[in-house]
Amino acid sequence: MKIIAPFPGMEPLAHRIAAETGAAIHPVALHRFPDGETLVTLGGDPEASEVAILATLRDPDRLALPLRFAALTARELGAARVGLVAPYLGYMRQDKRFHPREAVSAPIFAGFLEESFDWLVTVDPHLHRNRSLSALFRIPARRVATAPVLAAWIAANIPDAVLLGPDGESRQWVAEVATLAGRPYEVLTKHRTGDREVEISLPDSTVLRQGTPVILDDIASSGHTLVGTLEHLRRVGAPPAICMVIHAVFSDGAEEAIRQAGAARIVSTDTIAHPTNEISVGKLLATQMQEAAREA
Amino acid sequence: MKIIAPFPGMEPLAHRIAAETGAAIHPVALHRFPDGETLVTLGGDPEASEVAILATLRDPDRLALPLRFAALTARELGAARVGLVAPYLGYMRQDKRFHPREAVSAPIFAGFLEESFDWLVTVDPHLHRNRSLSALFRIPARRVATAPVLAAWIAANIPDAVLLGPDGESRQWVAEVATLAGRPYEVLTKHRTGDREVEISLPDSTVLRQGTPVILDDIASSGHTLVGTLEHLRRVGAPPAICMVIHAVFSDGAEEAIRQAGAARIVSTDTIAHPTNEISVGKLLATQMQEAAREA
Repeated sequence: MKIIAPFPGMEPLAHRIAAETGAAIHPVALHRFPDGETLVTLGGDPEASEVAILATLRDPDRLALPLRFAALTARELGAARVGLVAPYLGYMRQDKRFHPREAVSAPIFAGFLEESFDWLVTVDPHLHRNRSLSALFRIPARRVATAPVLAAWIAANIPDAVLLGPDGESRQWVAEVATLAGRPYEVLTKHRTGDREVEISLPDSTVLRQGTPVILDDIASSGHTLVGTLEHLRRVGAPPAICMVIHAVFSDGAEEAIRQAGAARIVSTDTIAHPTNEISVGKLLATQMQEAAREA
Repeated sequence: MKIIAPFPGMEPLAHRIAAETGAAIHPVALHRFPDGETLVTLGGDPEASEVAILATLRDPDRLALPLRFAALTARELGAARVGLVAPYLGYMRQDKRFHPREAVSAPIFAGFLEESFDWLVTVDPHLHRNRSLSALFRIPARRVATAPVLAAWIAANIPDAVLLGPDGESRQWVAEVATLAGRPYEVLTKHRTGDREVEISLPDSTVLRQGTPVILDDIASSGHTLVGTLEHLRRVGAPPAICMVIHAVFSDGAEEAIRQAGAARIVSTDTIAHPTNEISVGKLLATQMQEAAREA
Protein backbone atom coordinates (compact mmCIF):
# COMPACT_ATOMS: atom_id res chain seq x y z
CA MET A 1 0.00 0.00 0.00
CA LYS A 2 1.36 3.41 -1.00
CA ILE A 3 0.08 6.67 0.39
CA ILE A 4 0.59 10.24 -0.78
CA ALA A 5 -0.04 12.67 2.08
CA PRO A 6 -0.38 16.17 0.59
CA PHE A 7 -0.09 19.27 2.75
CA PRO A 8 -2.84 21.89 2.25
CA GLY A 9 -2.80 23.28 -1.31
CA MET A 10 -0.88 20.30 -2.70
CA GLU A 11 -3.94 18.20 -3.58
CA PRO A 12 -3.93 18.94 -7.35
CA LEU A 13 -0.32 17.78 -7.72
CA ALA A 14 -1.07 14.79 -5.46
CA HIS A 15 -3.81 13.72 -7.88
CA ARG A 16 -1.44 14.04 -10.85
CA ILE A 17 1.12 11.84 -9.08
CA ALA A 18 -1.52 9.35 -7.94
CA ALA A 19 -2.75 9.01 -11.52
CA GLU A 20 0.71 7.64 -12.39
CA THR A 21 1.34 5.50 -9.32
CA GLY A 22 -2.07 4.33 -8.13
CA ALA A 23 -1.26 5.57 -4.62
CA ALA A 24 -4.03 6.46 -2.16
CA ILE A 25 -4.31 10.14 -1.16
CA HIS A 26 -4.53 10.96 2.56
CA PRO A 27 -4.46 14.78 2.93
CA VAL A 28 -2.66 16.20 5.97
CA ALA A 29 -4.77 18.75 7.88
CA LEU A 30 -3.11 21.72 9.57
CA HIS A 31 -4.96 23.71 12.20
CA ARG A 32 -3.28 26.92 13.38
CA PHE A 33 -4.01 28.01 16.94
CA PRO A 34 -4.22 31.72 17.84
CA ASP A 35 -0.78 31.49 19.52
CA GLY A 36 0.97 30.38 16.30
CA GLU A 37 1.17 26.67 17.11
CA THR A 38 0.01 24.09 14.55
CA LEU A 39 -1.99 20.93 15.11
CA VAL A 40 -1.22 18.32 12.44
CA THR A 41 -3.67 15.50 11.72
CA LEU A 42 -2.98 12.70 9.25
CA GLY A 43 -5.73 11.94 6.76
CA GLY A 44 -5.69 8.16 7.06
CA ASP A 45 -4.09 5.17 8.73
CA PRO A 46 -0.44 4.85 7.61
CA GLU A 47 0.18 1.47 9.24
CA ALA A 48 2.60 -0.73 7.28
CA SER A 49 2.45 1.69 4.35
CA GLU A 50 5.05 3.53 2.31
CA VAL A 51 4.12 7.17 2.96
CA ALA A 52 5.19 10.11 0.77
CA ILE A 53 4.51 13.47 2.40
CA LEU A 54 4.00 16.05 -0.34
CA ALA A 55 4.80 19.64 0.69
CA THR A 56 6.44 22.38 -1.30
CA LEU A 57 8.81 24.42 0.86
CA ARG A 58 7.81 27.93 -0.10
CA ASP A 59 7.89 29.69 3.29
CA PRO A 60 9.95 26.87 4.85
CA ASP A 61 10.11 28.34 8.38
CA ARG A 62 6.33 28.00 8.75
CA LEU A 63 6.38 24.43 7.47
CA ALA A 64 9.39 22.95 9.24
CA LEU A 65 7.70 21.87 12.48
CA PRO A 66 4.46 20.72 10.79
CA LEU A 67 6.59 18.52 8.49
CA ARG A 68 8.30 16.99 11.46
CA PHE A 69 5.00 16.45 13.29
CA ALA A 70 3.51 14.75 10.22
CA ALA A 71 6.53 12.52 9.59
CA LEU A 72 7.01 11.40 13.19
CA THR A 73 3.30 10.80 13.65
CA ALA A 74 3.21 8.61 10.53
CA ARG A 75 6.13 6.63 11.99
CA GLU A 76 4.51 6.41 15.41
CA LEU A 77 1.34 5.06 13.77
CA GLY A 78 3.29 2.33 11.99
CA ALA A 79 4.30 3.64 8.56
CA ALA A 80 6.85 1.33 6.95
CA ARG A 81 8.80 4.30 5.63
CA VAL A 82 8.22 8.03 5.28
CA GLY A 83 9.59 10.04 2.36
CA LEU A 84 9.37 13.72 1.51
CA VAL A 85 8.37 15.01 -1.89
CA ALA A 86 9.26 18.71 -1.83
CA PRO A 87 8.87 19.99 -5.40
CA TYR A 88 10.45 23.26 -4.23
CA LEU A 89 13.05 22.55 -1.57
CA GLY A 90 14.09 25.94 -0.14
CA TYR A 91 17.23 26.84 1.82
CA MET A 92 19.58 25.57 -0.88
CA ARG A 93 21.07 28.99 -1.66
CA GLN A 94 22.91 29.69 1.62
CA ASP A 95 25.52 27.03 0.92
CA LYS A 96 28.52 28.95 2.25
CA ARG A 97 29.32 31.73 4.73
CA PHE A 98 29.21 35.02 2.85
CA HIS A 99 29.80 37.18 5.97
CA PRO A 100 31.32 36.39 9.39
CA ARG A 101 29.18 34.44 11.88
CA GLU A 102 26.35 33.75 9.41
CA ALA A 103 24.53 30.43 9.60
CA VAL A 104 25.21 28.20 6.60
CA SER A 105 21.62 27.08 6.38
CA ALA A 106 21.68 24.62 3.45
CA PRO A 107 23.46 21.76 5.28
CA ILE A 108 21.66 22.47 8.58
CA PHE A 109 18.29 22.36 6.83
CA ALA A 110 19.28 19.16 5.03
CA GLY A 111 20.21 17.65 8.40
CA PHE A 112 16.86 18.69 9.84
CA LEU A 113 14.98 16.91 7.03
CA GLU A 114 17.14 13.77 7.29
CA GLU A 115 16.13 13.35 10.92
CA SER A 116 12.49 12.92 9.86
CA PHE A 117 12.52 11.32 6.42
CA ASP A 118 13.85 8.14 4.83
CA TRP A 119 14.16 9.58 1.36
CA LEU A 120 13.65 12.82 -0.52
CA VAL A 121 12.60 13.86 -4.01
CA THR A 122 12.74 17.43 -5.24
CA VAL A 123 12.65 19.31 -8.53
CA ASP A 124 15.68 21.20 -9.90
CA PRO A 125 17.13 22.31 -6.57
CA HIS A 126 19.16 25.53 -6.66
CA LEU A 127 22.52 23.80 -6.23
CA HIS A 128 25.53 25.96 -6.72
CA ARG A 129 28.64 25.10 -4.75
CA ASN A 130 27.12 21.77 -3.71
CA ARG A 131 27.14 20.01 -7.06
CA SER A 132 24.63 17.32 -6.17
CA LEU A 133 22.01 16.49 -3.55
CA SER A 134 24.17 13.59 -2.36
CA ALA A 135 26.78 16.14 -1.24
CA LEU A 136 24.17 17.53 1.17
CA PHE A 137 21.97 14.54 2.07
CA ARG A 138 22.88 11.16 3.50
CA ILE A 139 19.40 9.78 2.81
CA PRO A 140 18.54 8.81 -0.79
CA ALA A 141 17.77 12.16 -2.43
CA ARG A 142 16.72 12.35 -6.05
CA ARG A 143 16.14 15.34 -8.28
CA VAL A 144 13.62 15.70 -11.05
CA ALA A 145 15.10 17.59 -14.01
CA THR A 146 12.48 19.78 -15.65
CA ALA A 147 14.52 20.40 -18.83
CA PRO A 148 12.62 17.79 -20.91
CA VAL A 149 9.15 19.19 -20.06
CA LEU A 150 10.32 22.80 -20.45
CA ALA A 151 11.84 21.99 -23.84
CA ALA A 152 8.69 20.15 -24.92
CA TRP A 153 6.54 23.12 -23.91
CA ILE A 154 8.78 25.49 -25.88
CA ALA A 155 8.77 23.27 -28.95
CA ALA A 156 4.96 23.06 -28.85
CA ASN A 157 4.24 26.73 -28.01
CA ILE A 158 7.15 28.99 -29.07
CA PRO A 159 8.86 27.24 -31.99
CA ASP A 160 11.01 30.33 -32.79
CA ALA A 161 12.19 30.74 -29.17
CA VAL A 162 15.55 32.28 -28.35
CA LEU A 163 16.45 31.26 -24.80
CA LEU A 164 17.99 33.77 -22.45
CA GLY A 165 19.57 33.06 -19.10
CA PRO A 166 19.51 36.15 -16.84
CA ASP A 167 22.79 35.30 -15.09
CA GLY A 168 25.67 32.85 -14.92
CA GLU A 169 23.87 30.61 -12.40
CA SER A 170 21.04 30.07 -14.89
CA ARG A 171 23.43 28.68 -17.53
CA GLN A 172 22.93 25.13 -16.24
CA TRP A 173 19.17 25.25 -16.97
CA VAL A 174 19.22 27.33 -20.12
CA ALA A 175 21.89 25.41 -22.00
CA GLU A 176 20.14 22.08 -21.46
CA VAL A 177 16.64 23.28 -22.34
CA ALA A 178 17.93 25.06 -25.48
CA THR A 179 19.77 21.96 -26.60
CA LEU A 180 16.73 19.71 -26.04
CA ALA A 181 14.48 22.20 -27.86
CA GLY A 182 17.02 22.70 -30.65
CA ARG A 183 17.02 26.46 -30.19
CA PRO A 184 19.78 29.09 -29.68
CA TYR A 185 20.55 30.60 -26.27
CA GLU A 186 22.50 33.40 -24.60
CA VAL A 187 23.44 34.07 -20.97
CA LEU A 188 23.43 37.59 -19.51
CA THR A 189 25.63 38.97 -16.75
CA LYS A 190 23.91 39.93 -13.49
CA HIS A 191 25.31 42.11 -10.71
CA ARG A 192 23.38 41.75 -7.47
CA THR A 193 23.64 44.81 -5.25
CA GLY A 194 21.15 43.73 -2.54
CA ASP A 195 18.20 41.37 -1.90
CA ARG A 196 16.02 43.25 -4.32
CA GLU A 197 18.49 45.25 -6.43
CA VAL A 198 19.88 43.80 -9.64
CA GLU A 199 21.80 45.17 -12.65
CA ILE A 200 21.87 43.26 -15.91
CA SER A 201 24.12 43.39 -18.93
CA LEU A 202 23.73 41.44 -22.17
CA PRO A 203 26.85 40.65 -24.17
CA ASP A 204 26.68 42.03 -27.70
CA SER A 205 24.78 39.42 -29.58
CA THR A 206 22.82 38.83 -32.73
CA VAL A 207 20.84 36.08 -31.00
CA LEU A 208 17.94 38.44 -30.15
CA ARG A 209 17.19 38.89 -33.85
CA GLN A 210 16.57 35.18 -34.33
CA GLY A 211 13.11 34.87 -32.74
CA THR A 212 10.94 35.32 -29.64
CA PRO A 213 12.97 35.83 -26.45
CA VAL A 214 12.20 33.37 -23.64
CA ILE A 215 13.90 34.26 -20.36
CA LEU A 216 14.40 31.14 -18.26
CA ASP A 217 15.24 31.16 -14.55
CA ASP A 218 14.94 28.50 -11.89
CA ILE A 219 13.43 30.68 -9.12
CA ALA A 220 11.40 33.89 -9.42
CA SER A 221 11.19 35.30 -5.90
CA SER A 222 11.30 39.11 -5.70
CA GLY A 223 11.09 39.08 -9.53
CA HIS A 224 13.84 41.70 -9.76
CA THR A 225 16.10 39.54 -11.90
CA LEU A 226 13.35 39.08 -14.48
CA VAL A 227 12.33 42.74 -14.27
CA GLY A 228 15.91 43.88 -14.85
CA THR A 229 16.26 41.52 -17.82
CA LEU A 230 12.96 42.65 -19.34
CA GLU A 231 13.95 46.30 -18.96
CA HIS A 232 17.26 45.61 -20.61
CA LEU A 233 15.63 43.81 -23.53
CA ARG A 234 13.24 46.71 -24.01
CA ARG A 235 16.15 49.17 -24.10
CA VAL A 236 17.91 47.19 -26.85
CA GLY A 237 14.70 46.98 -28.88
CA ALA A 238 13.98 43.25 -28.51
CA PRO A 239 10.42 41.96 -29.08
CA PRO A 240 8.28 41.33 -25.92
CA ALA A 241 9.75 38.40 -23.97
CA ILE A 242 8.19 35.35 -22.38
CA CYS A 243 9.28 34.59 -18.80
CA MET A 244 9.63 30.90 -17.97
CA VAL A 245 10.35 29.96 -14.36
CA ILE A 246 10.68 26.57 -12.77
CA HIS A 247 9.71 27.59 -9.22
CA ALA A 248 7.01 30.29 -8.98
CA VAL A 249 8.03 31.57 -5.51
CA PHE A 250 6.74 35.09 -6.34
CA SER A 251 6.87 37.20 -3.20
CA ASP A 252 4.29 40.01 -2.80
CA GLY A 253 3.98 42.14 -5.92
CA ALA A 254 6.57 40.18 -7.92
CA GLU A 255 4.23 38.87 -10.62
CA GLU A 256 2.69 42.32 -11.15
CA ALA A 257 6.15 43.93 -11.42
CA ILE A 258 7.19 41.37 -14.06
CA ARG A 259 4.05 42.03 -16.10
CA GLN A 260 4.56 45.79 -15.84
CA ALA A 261 8.16 45.42 -17.02
CA GLY A 262 6.77 44.07 -20.28
CA ALA A 263 6.54 40.27 -20.02
CA ALA A 264 4.41 38.98 -22.91
CA ARG A 265 3.56 35.91 -20.83
CA ILE A 266 4.68 34.19 -17.62
CA VAL A 267 4.86 30.40 -17.57
CA SER A 268 5.81 28.18 -14.62
CA THR A 269 5.82 24.55 -13.55
CA ASP A 270 3.49 23.33 -10.80
CA THR A 271 6.22 22.84 -8.16
CA ILE A 272 4.55 25.79 -6.38
CA ALA A 273 0.82 26.24 -7.04
CA HIS A 274 0.33 29.53 -8.90
CA PRO A 275 -1.99 30.86 -11.64
CA THR A 276 0.97 30.84 -14.08
CA ASN A 277 1.45 27.04 -13.80
CA GLU A 278 1.25 25.57 -17.30
CA ILE A 279 3.76 22.73 -17.12
CA SER A 280 3.28 19.77 -14.77
CA VAL A 281 6.06 17.87 -13.06
CA GLY A 282 3.61 15.24 -11.77
CA LYS A 283 4.70 12.44 -14.07
CA LEU A 284 8.41 13.09 -13.49
CA LEU A 285 7.87 13.19 -9.72
CA ALA A 286 6.05 9.87 -9.80
CA THR A 287 9.02 8.18 -11.50
CA GLN A 288 11.63 9.59 -9.11
CA MET A 289 9.52 8.81 -6.04
CA GLN A 290 9.44 5.17 -7.00
CA GLU A 291 13.22 5.16 -7.54
CA ALA A 292 13.91 6.89 -4.23
CA ALA A 293 11.67 4.54 -2.26
CA ARG A 294 13.44 1.56 -3.89
CA GLU A 295 16.84 2.92 -2.82
CA ALA A 296 15.86 3.70 0.80
CA MET B 1 33.27 33.75 29.32
CA LYS B 2 29.46 33.67 29.25
CA ILE B 3 27.36 34.99 26.42
CA ILE B 4 23.64 35.76 26.23
CA ALA B 5 22.48 35.75 22.60
CA PRO B 6 19.04 37.37 22.49
CA PHE B 7 16.75 36.97 19.50
CA PRO B 8 15.18 40.19 18.17
CA GLY B 9 12.91 41.80 20.77
CA MET B 10 14.58 39.98 23.69
CA GLU B 11 17.24 42.61 24.40
CA PRO B 12 15.50 44.21 27.44
CA LEU B 13 15.23 40.85 29.21
CA ALA B 14 18.82 40.02 28.16
CA HIS B 15 20.02 43.16 29.92
CA ARG B 16 18.09 42.25 33.08
CA ILE B 17 19.71 38.80 33.09
CA ALA B 18 23.16 40.19 32.27
CA ALA B 19 22.87 42.60 35.20
CA GLU B 20 22.69 39.52 37.47
CA THR B 21 25.27 37.32 35.79
CA GLY B 22 27.80 39.68 34.20
CA ALA B 23 27.38 37.87 30.85
CA ALA B 24 28.21 39.61 27.57
CA ILE B 25 25.27 40.28 25.21
CA HIS B 26 25.65 39.23 21.56
CA PRO B 27 22.31 39.85 19.82
CA VAL B 28 21.27 37.37 17.10
CA ALA B 29 20.24 39.10 13.85
CA LEU B 30 17.47 37.62 11.69
CA HIS B 31 17.05 38.69 8.09
CA ARG B 32 13.94 37.43 6.30
CA PHE B 33 14.22 36.96 2.55
CA PRO B 34 11.20 37.59 0.30
CA ASP B 35 10.74 33.80 -0.13
CA GLY B 36 10.23 33.25 3.62
CA GLU B 37 13.73 31.96 4.39
CA THR B 38 15.71 33.42 7.28
CA LEU B 39 19.38 34.32 7.43
CA VAL B 40 20.70 34.08 10.99
CA THR B 41 23.87 35.94 12.02
CA LEU B 42 25.45 35.67 15.46
CA GLY B 43 26.37 38.94 17.15
CA GLY B 44 29.83 37.95 18.34
CA ASP B 45 32.45 35.22 18.46
CA PRO B 46 31.18 32.30 20.60
CA GLU B 47 34.48 30.38 20.65
CA ALA B 48 35.10 28.50 23.89
CA SER B 49 32.14 30.28 25.50
CA GLU B 50 29.05 29.12 27.34
CA VAL B 51 26.27 30.49 25.10
CA ALA B 52 22.65 31.00 26.21
CA ILE B 53 20.32 31.71 23.32
CA LEU B 54 17.39 33.77 24.60
CA ALA B 55 14.21 33.43 22.55
CA THR B 56 10.64 33.31 23.72
CA LEU B 57 8.61 30.78 21.71
CA ARG B 58 5.52 32.82 20.93
CA ASP B 59 4.88 31.82 17.28
CA PRO B 60 7.14 28.77 17.58
CA ASP B 61 6.77 27.59 13.96
CA ARG B 62 8.44 30.78 12.69
CA LEU B 63 11.27 30.45 15.21
CA ALA B 64 12.09 26.75 15.04
CA LEU B 65 14.55 26.81 12.12
CA PRO B 66 16.19 30.12 13.13
CA LEU B 67 16.77 28.62 16.60
CA ARG B 68 18.43 25.61 15.06
CA PHE B 69 20.54 27.76 12.72
CA ALA B 70 21.70 29.90 15.65
CA ALA B 71 22.52 26.94 17.91
CA LEU B 72 24.38 24.90 15.31
CA THR B 73 26.31 27.93 14.07
CA ALA B 74 27.40 28.73 17.63
CA ARG B 75 28.62 25.12 17.94
CA GLU B 76 30.34 25.22 14.56
CA LEU B 77 32.15 28.40 15.61
CA GLY B 78 33.45 26.72 18.75
CA ALA B 79 30.96 27.42 21.57
CA ALA B 80 31.73 25.24 24.58
CA ARG B 81 28.02 24.63 25.19
CA VAL B 82 24.78 26.09 23.90
CA GLY B 83 21.68 26.41 26.08
CA LEU B 84 18.22 27.74 25.36
CA VAL B 85 16.43 30.22 27.58
CA ALA B 86 12.83 30.18 26.37
CA PRO B 87 10.82 32.17 28.92
CA TYR B 88 7.68 31.01 27.09
CA LEU B 89 8.18 27.52 25.75
CA GLY B 90 5.19 26.78 23.49
CA TYR B 91 3.88 23.38 22.32
CA MET B 92 3.45 22.02 25.85
CA ARG B 93 -0.33 21.73 25.63
CA GLN B 94 -0.65 18.97 22.99
CA ASP B 95 0.66 16.32 25.37
CA LYS B 96 -1.70 13.53 24.32
CA ARG B 97 -3.76 12.47 21.30
CA PHE B 98 -7.22 14.00 21.66
CA HIS B 99 -8.45 12.74 18.25
CA PRO B 100 -7.30 9.90 15.98
CA ARG B 101 -4.13 10.46 13.91
CA GLU B 102 -3.27 13.77 15.56
CA ALA B 103 0.37 14.62 16.14
CA VAL B 104 1.31 14.69 19.82
CA SER B 105 3.46 17.75 19.43
CA ALA B 106 4.81 18.29 22.97
CA PRO B 107 7.31 15.38 22.95
CA ILE B 108 8.21 15.89 19.27
CA PHE B 109 8.94 19.56 19.90
CA ALA B 110 10.98 18.66 22.98
CA GLY B 111 12.98 16.22 20.86
CA PHE B 112 13.57 18.89 18.25
CA LEU B 113 15.01 21.27 20.87
CA GLU B 114 17.18 18.56 22.45
CA GLU B 115 18.92 17.98 19.13
CA SER B 116 20.23 21.58 19.20
CA PHE B 117 20.69 22.52 22.85
CA ASP B 118 22.67 21.22 25.83
CA TRP B 119 20.29 22.60 28.44
CA LEU B 120 17.02 24.47 28.71
CA VAL B 121 15.46 26.97 31.08
CA THR B 122 11.85 28.08 30.85
CA VAL B 123 9.28 29.83 33.01
CA ASP B 124 6.19 28.05 34.36
CA PRO B 125 5.61 25.72 31.41
CA HIS B 126 2.03 24.61 30.85
CA LEU B 127 2.56 21.06 32.07
CA HIS B 128 -0.52 18.99 32.53
CA ARG B 129 -0.23 15.27 31.97
CA ASN B 130 3.57 15.53 31.91
CA ARG B 131 4.17 16.40 35.54
CA SER B 132 7.70 17.73 35.07
CA LEU B 133 10.06 18.92 32.36
CA SER B 134 12.27 15.89 33.00
CA ALA B 135 9.41 13.67 31.79
CA LEU B 136 9.72 15.40 28.40
CA PHE B 137 13.40 16.39 28.11
CA ARG B 138 16.53 14.28 28.40
CA ILE B 139 18.76 17.38 28.56
CA PRO B 140 18.91 19.31 31.86
CA ALA B 141 15.70 21.36 31.80
CA ARG B 142 14.85 23.73 34.62
CA ARG B 143 11.74 25.75 35.30
CA VAL B 144 11.49 29.15 36.88
CA ALA B 145 8.47 29.36 39.18
CA THR B 146 6.92 32.82 39.06
CA ALA B 147 4.78 32.35 42.19
CA PRO B 148 7.19 34.29 44.48
CA VAL B 149 7.34 37.36 42.20
CA LEU B 150 3.58 37.24 41.52
CA ALA B 151 2.86 37.00 45.25
CA ALA B 152 5.29 39.85 46.00
CA TRP B 153 3.61 42.03 43.36
CA ILE B 154 0.16 41.29 44.83
CA ALA B 155 1.31 41.99 48.40
CA ALA B 156 2.80 45.33 47.30
CA ASN B 157 0.00 46.45 44.96
CA ILE B 158 -3.31 44.74 45.85
CA PRO B 159 -3.12 43.95 49.56
CA ASP B 160 -6.85 43.00 49.70
CA ALA B 161 -6.60 40.63 46.68
CA VAL B 162 -8.90 37.64 46.33
CA LEU B 163 -7.28 35.25 43.85
CA LEU B 164 -9.41 33.49 41.25
CA GLY B 165 -8.35 30.65 39.01
CA PRO B 166 -10.49 30.51 35.85
CA ASP B 167 -10.34 26.70 35.57
CA GLY B 168 -9.03 23.52 37.13
CA GLU B 169 -5.73 23.70 35.28
CA SER B 170 -4.99 27.07 36.87
CA ARG B 171 -5.27 25.65 40.39
CA GLN B 172 -1.55 24.83 40.49
CA TRP B 173 -0.61 28.50 40.01
CA VAL B 174 -3.39 30.11 42.01
CA ALA B 175 -3.09 28.02 45.15
CA GLU B 176 0.65 28.65 45.46
CA VAL B 177 0.51 32.38 44.78
CA ALA B 178 -2.41 32.83 47.21
CA THR B 179 -0.55 30.94 49.92
CA LEU B 180 2.65 32.98 49.43
CA ALA B 181 0.65 36.22 49.42
CA GLY B 182 -1.42 35.12 52.44
CA ARG B 183 -4.68 35.77 50.59
CA PRO B 184 -7.83 33.66 49.90
CA TYR B 185 -8.46 31.99 46.55
CA GLU B 186 -11.18 30.21 44.58
CA VAL B 187 -11.09 28.11 41.39
CA LEU B 188 -13.84 28.33 38.76
CA THR B 189 -15.03 25.60 36.42
CA LYS B 190 -14.39 26.09 32.70
CA HIS B 191 -16.05 24.23 29.84
CA ARG B 192 -14.11 24.64 26.59
CA THR B 193 -16.32 24.18 23.52
CA GLY B 194 -13.74 25.14 20.84
CA ASP B 195 -10.48 27.07 20.30
CA ARG B 196 -12.14 30.35 21.11
CA GLU B 197 -15.35 29.38 22.92
CA VAL B 198 -15.40 29.05 26.68
CA GLU B 199 -18.13 28.78 29.35
CA ILE B 200 -17.37 29.56 32.98
CA SER B 201 -19.10 28.73 36.24
CA LEU B 202 -18.12 29.90 39.73
CA PRO B 203 -19.04 27.71 42.68
CA ASP B 204 -21.21 29.50 45.23
CA SER B 205 -18.77 31.34 47.39
CA THR B 206 -18.42 34.21 49.80
CA VAL B 207 -14.83 34.71 48.74
CA LEU B 208 -15.74 37.48 46.28
CA ARG B 209 -16.92 39.68 49.13
CA GLN B 210 -13.50 39.61 50.81
CA GLY B 211 -11.60 42.03 48.52
CA THR B 212 -10.42 42.92 45.00
CA PRO B 213 -10.69 40.00 42.58
CA VAL B 214 -7.41 39.08 40.83
CA ILE B 215 -7.89 36.48 38.09
CA LEU B 216 -4.65 34.53 37.57
CA ASP B 217 -3.93 32.39 34.52
CA ASP B 218 -0.68 31.05 33.10
CA ILE B 219 -1.37 31.82 29.41
CA ALA B 220 -3.65 34.44 27.88
CA SER B 221 -3.86 33.59 24.17
CA SER B 222 -7.27 34.26 22.58
CA GLY B 223 -8.24 35.88 25.90
CA HIS B 224 -11.58 34.08 25.89
CA THR B 225 -11.01 32.41 29.24
CA LEU B 226 -10.38 35.75 30.92
CA VAL B 227 -13.27 37.39 29.03
CA GLY B 228 -15.65 34.64 30.14
CA THR B 229 -14.49 34.94 33.74
CA LEU B 230 -14.82 38.74 33.73
CA GLU B 231 -18.33 38.52 32.29
CA HIS B 232 -19.29 36.01 34.93
CA LEU B 233 -17.92 38.21 37.71
CA ARG B 234 -19.86 41.17 36.37
CA ARG B 235 -23.07 39.12 36.33
CA VAL B 236 -22.66 38.18 39.99
CA GLY B 237 -21.94 41.79 40.99
CA ALA B 238 -18.27 41.49 41.88
CA PRO B 239 -16.05 44.61 41.85
CA PRO B 240 -13.88 45.18 38.70
CA ALA B 241 -11.22 42.48 38.51
CA ILE B 242 -7.49 42.61 37.83
CA CYS B 243 -6.17 40.10 35.28
CA MET B 244 -2.76 38.66 36.05
CA VAL B 245 -1.16 36.43 33.43
CA ILE B 246 2.23 34.79 33.43
CA HIS B 247 2.64 34.53 29.64
CA ALA B 248 1.18 37.44 27.61
CA VAL B 249 0.67 35.48 24.37
CA PHE B 250 -2.29 37.72 23.39
CA SER B 251 -3.35 36.86 19.85
CA ASP B 252 -4.89 39.63 17.72
CA GLY B 253 -7.59 41.56 19.56
CA ALA B 254 -7.25 39.57 22.79
CA GLU B 255 -6.05 42.41 25.01
CA GLU B 256 -8.77 44.77 23.72
CA ALA B 257 -11.45 42.11 24.35
CA ILE B 258 -10.25 41.63 27.93
CA ARG B 259 -10.36 45.37 28.60
CA GLN B 260 -13.84 45.63 27.08
CA ALA B 261 -15.04 42.78 29.28
CA GLY B 262 -14.29 44.98 32.27
CA ALA B 263 -10.72 44.26 33.41
CA ALA B 264 -9.66 46.99 35.85
CA ARG B 265 -6.02 46.30 34.95
CA ILE B 266 -3.95 43.68 33.10
CA VAL B 267 -0.61 42.67 34.54
CA SER B 268 1.89 40.21 33.07
CA THR B 269 5.46 39.02 33.50
CA ASP B 270 8.11 39.80 30.88
CA THR B 271 8.37 36.24 29.52
CA ILE B 272 6.78 37.68 26.36
CA ALA B 273 7.45 41.38 25.71
CA HIS B 274 4.14 43.25 25.96
CA PRO B 275 2.94 46.66 27.22
CA THR B 276 1.29 44.93 30.20
CA ASN B 277 4.64 43.56 31.53
CA GLU B 278 5.01 44.77 35.12
CA ILE B 279 6.79 41.85 36.76
CA SER B 280 10.25 40.75 35.68
CA VAL B 281 11.51 37.18 35.68
CA GLY B 282 15.07 38.32 34.85
CA LYS B 283 16.58 37.63 38.26
CA LEU B 284 14.89 34.20 38.55
CA LEU B 285 16.05 33.26 35.04
CA ALA B 286 19.64 34.22 35.86
CA THR B 287 19.67 31.83 38.84
CA GLN B 288 18.18 28.89 36.93
CA MET B 289 20.47 29.44 33.93
CA GLN B 290 23.51 29.09 36.16
CA GLU B 291 22.08 25.90 37.69
CA ALA B 292 21.22 24.38 34.29
CA ALA B 293 24.65 25.13 32.83
CA ARG B 294 26.26 23.52 35.89
CA GLU B 295 24.18 20.36 35.40
CA ALA B 296 24.84 20.01 31.66
